[in-house]
Amino acid sequence: MKNLIIASTSTLFGEEYLEYLLPELAHHFANVSVVTFIPFARPSGISHNEYTQKVAHALKKINKKVIGLHEFEDKQKALYEAEAIFVGGGNTFVLVNDLYSYNLMDTLKEVIENGTPYLGCSAGSNITGVSIKTTNDMPIVYPPSFETLGVVPFNINPHYLDPNPDLKHNGETRETRIQEFLVYNKQPVLGLREGSWLDVKGNHIVLKGNLTARLFLQNKEPQELEPFTELNFLASC
Amino acid sequence: MKNLIIASTSTLFGEEYLEYLLPELAHHFANVSVVTFIPFARPSGISHNEYTQKVAHALKKINKKVIGLHEFEDKQKALYEAEAIFVGGGNTFVLVNDLYSYNLMDTLKEVIENGTPYLGCSAGSNITGVSIKTTNDMPIVYPPSFETLGVVPFNINPHYLDPNPDLKHNGETRETRIQEFLVYNKQPVLGLREGSWLDVKGNHIVLKGNLTARLFLQNKEPQELEPFTELNFLASC
Repeated sequence: MKNLIIASTSTLFGEEYLEYLLPELAHHFANVSVVTFIPFARPSGISHNEYTQKVAHALKKINKKVIGLHEFEDKQKALYEAEAIFVGGGNTFVLVNDLYSYNLMDTLKEVIENGTPYLGCSAGSNITGVSIKTTNDMPIVYPPSFETLGVVPFNINPHYLDPNPDLKHNGETRETRIQEFLVYNKQPVLGLREGSWLDVKGNHIVLKGNLTARLFLQNKEPQELEPFTELNFLASC
Repeated sequence: MKNLIIASTSTLFGEEYLEYLLPELAHHFANVSVVTFIPFARPSGISHNEYTQKVAHALKKINKKVIGLHEFEDKQKALYEAEAIFVGGGNTFVLVNDLYSYNLMDTLKEVIENGTPYLGCSAGSNITGVSIKTTNDMPIVYPPSFETLGVVPFNINPHYLDPNPDLKHNGETRETRIQEFLVYNKQPVLGLREGSWLDVKGNHIVLKGNLTARLFLQNKEPQELEPFTELNFLASC
């Protein structure tokens, strides 16, 4: 049975890394001693080792050990044997490019579908959707495909931001960008604000956190979904 | 001799489309009666016809006629015969995908290098750089390549935005994103603020408008460049 936490962000403003999620993660990883961390997204270009140490420091607070996937020679085997998997944020294109380079996309999907507990933050959440076509990241490398895990039946836009009416700037708003996506693509898009996450148990997908999320469907007005909304209905959208 | 205007944005806050650029464009297009417009980037998904009409309305103020490239059966021939070319903003991935689909990228580069006056705004400016790896746009379609015209020897980040110290949001700043680009790529990146443009005449590339631009080089601190700075030195960076 699928068992995922898909978080908009790792860190809330003014808080420490993963701080707001730790109570939820203590529960999510209750039966886990060692979390296998995938550091490929390298936020600000930090090294795989540095990033893994940062995660280890955070998850030590709930008594979990962390090992970086980059340390394994046979990365597919490491995923099959992982007790739990965490894919951290950073650059989604770099992450996806590395997952394809190591031929890990299918393996990751397989172990998630077989029930290995998964945590994704930001880029690590993006890849749980159908594609990364709704990432906010800069396309700093060219991956062999934009298609991703599709373990939820829609696309995710993490760090969802409402338009700022005071901004005297002509760049597109997030909503405009997602509407442009829907001109060319049919998948629903869920804008997850920072502080929201999805709790996935089998086919049940529930919005968690205190905030509403913004749902975009092709040819429909966007709608706000309340916390605890069940999102499985999106499989038929 | 190359002859381009490469603008950060088409529109300044509170102004009409292209308004701030019209005096410059009257000069740039002085010997031109008809501008061939490439509407492929489709901002907010508007149709090629609507977009072309919008441009025609704006350029009528400086007595230019506008014809959309989408109306030509033989688009390569249309580019070879164009008096001037304008590539408008919108989604850079859609624009690049269409240019590759119609096999126009090389033709566009050729006519620009042969001296056809070119105007780019936003996405249309992005493609004058080495690649679109520093676009701000959402990757809503998967183009066959991120490589673009390279008629300037660096990458452009249009709509450059300074970090907002008041923003309680954890998404990456523009500067962080560009620094991530430089972890994987060597090309200089020029952050062009809205209201700035590059005036390219042969190998001379001059920053115009009243604002400074932000230059990012690999392994160096970013620097602010004053208006009228000559940017040809970036060819050797």
